[in-house]
Amino acid sequence: MSNLTAGIIIIGDEILSGRTKDTNSNFIADKLVKAGIKLEQIRTIQDKQKTITDTVKAFHKSYTYVFTTGGIGPTHDDITSESIAIAFNKEFCFHKEAFKILEEYYPKGELNEGRKKMAKMPSSSELILNPLTVCPGFRIENVFVFPGVPEIMKKMFVNVLKKIKKGNPKKIITINTNLYESLLAEKLSIIQKKNPKCSIGSYPYFNHIANTKGVNIVISSWELKNLDNIASEIEEMISLLNGKSKIV
Amino acid sequence: MSNLTAGIIIIGDEILSGRTKDTNSNFIADKLVKAGIKLEQIRTIQDKQKTITDTVKAFHKSYTYVFTTGGIGPTHDDITSESIAIAFNKEFCFHKEAFKILEEYYPKGELNEGRKKMAKMPSSSELILNPLTVCPGFRIENVFVFPGVPEIMKKMFVNVLKKIKKGNPKKIITINTNLYESLLAEKLSIIQKKNPKCSIGSYPYFNHIANTKGVNIVISSWELKNLDNIASEIEEMISLLNGKSKIV
Repeated sequence: MSNLTAGIIIIGDEILSGRTKDTNSNFIADKLVKAGIKLEQIRTIQDKQKTITDTVKAFHKSYTYVFTTGGIGPTHDDITSESIAIAFNKEFCFHKEAFKILEEYYPKGELNEGRKKMAKMPSSSELILNPLTVCPGFRIENVFVFPGVPEIMKKMFVNVLKKIKKGNPKKIITINTNLYESLLAEKLSIIQKKNPKCSIGSYPYFNHIANTKGVNIVISSWELKNLDNIASEIEEMISLLNGKSKIV
Repeated sequence: MSNLTAGIIIIGDEILSGRTKDTNSNFIADKLVKAGIKLEQIRTIQDKQKTITDTVKAFHKSYTYVFTTGGIGPTHDDITSESIAIAFNKEFCFHKEAFKILEEYYPKGELNEGRKKMAKMPSSSELILNPLTVCPGFRIENVFVFPGVPEIMKKMFVNVLKKIKKGNPKKIITINTNLYESLLAEKLSIIQKKNPKCSIGSYPYFNHIANTKGVNIVISSWELKNLDNIASEIEEMISLLNGKSKIV
């Protein structure tokens, strides 16, 4: 088990209305598992102050790292930063360095109220620099606050990940087979029981247009250094059931 | 405001590990908004009994409809049905009709333990038929339980949606503009304040590879029958700021 855990909060009515596909959480999830950080929950919530505040409070207590995306722009519907200030009982005020970045970026006279708003964050926040469009994110305690625009969020997240404490990556082996899951179930359960330090997941896929179906068996462990023996046992079991298998 | 609300629970370690992209929640979100049902939360959780039980209990109380995906297959890691039985304090037992469907489907002698497991659900559940691979989902009170495989889940969801109570679809107009969000912010906020019965969201997009950027302004309302006046006002505002706009 990795000692380092994480939760993601996706803030945005546009995701809940189905208008926008959230691609940020999958990107973060993939990076975290490789960094030895166990992602335990993703929550997509409305742009509502109380909801944001309550969710951030709960995640702050539950996980080593909390990553939020969305709602830190210049418009009236961007209420993430203010809601997080409330969660931490901090003043919501101008961050000097952020203000300076914006002041230097915009031509004289063009730093309007909306733009200034992007320099407001909970007091004592640390900036997360934005290499693409200046408007920064921020970190307060274990909560890292990113914009929602995927291209920007991803660049900023990768920079943050370089700096935070990481764990040992999870060991993972995936075995693909043509057998039905229901044929494998019994034997797979026995192998799982014999190997409590790994987790064996079974994921069928089915696409009748592409005419593909099968099962991916995923052996994974935070603790074990080597999963080869377990993989061999599963491949042998598949072979005895007259199935085909390959490690993918 | 639609009186009908919904929450989605995505159950699956494979999503949290980044291995699998969740496409189910976006599919459901899109169908719900068109059906006049307000999706208020999406939560992706681990395959852990207590987590599933607690989340289902909380959602059951909070929303008109709850949709879960994942974890109802034949293998040891499929623990959704049992966890939901615990949430409702129901016996976890064979559903007669489900058992009969499986019995008729599999050749004699091939209804093994794993397959039989797919007929177990909380007592008093109502079946959700599976037109593709027989293994059914189920409904208990306001909780609808689907498999995770997208092609199967989607077909079953569409059938369920035909039968449940729907509301008036949300009215939505989207205006695209080339202006920066930070230029629009102040005026947009004034228009929002004048029109409290609609919600005005502002969503910048930015892709420096495709070299596209701009903002989508989304006006939406569950109450108002017509949003044309508000859209006109926003388009006029954009024009006064020397921007281009089009309804998309």
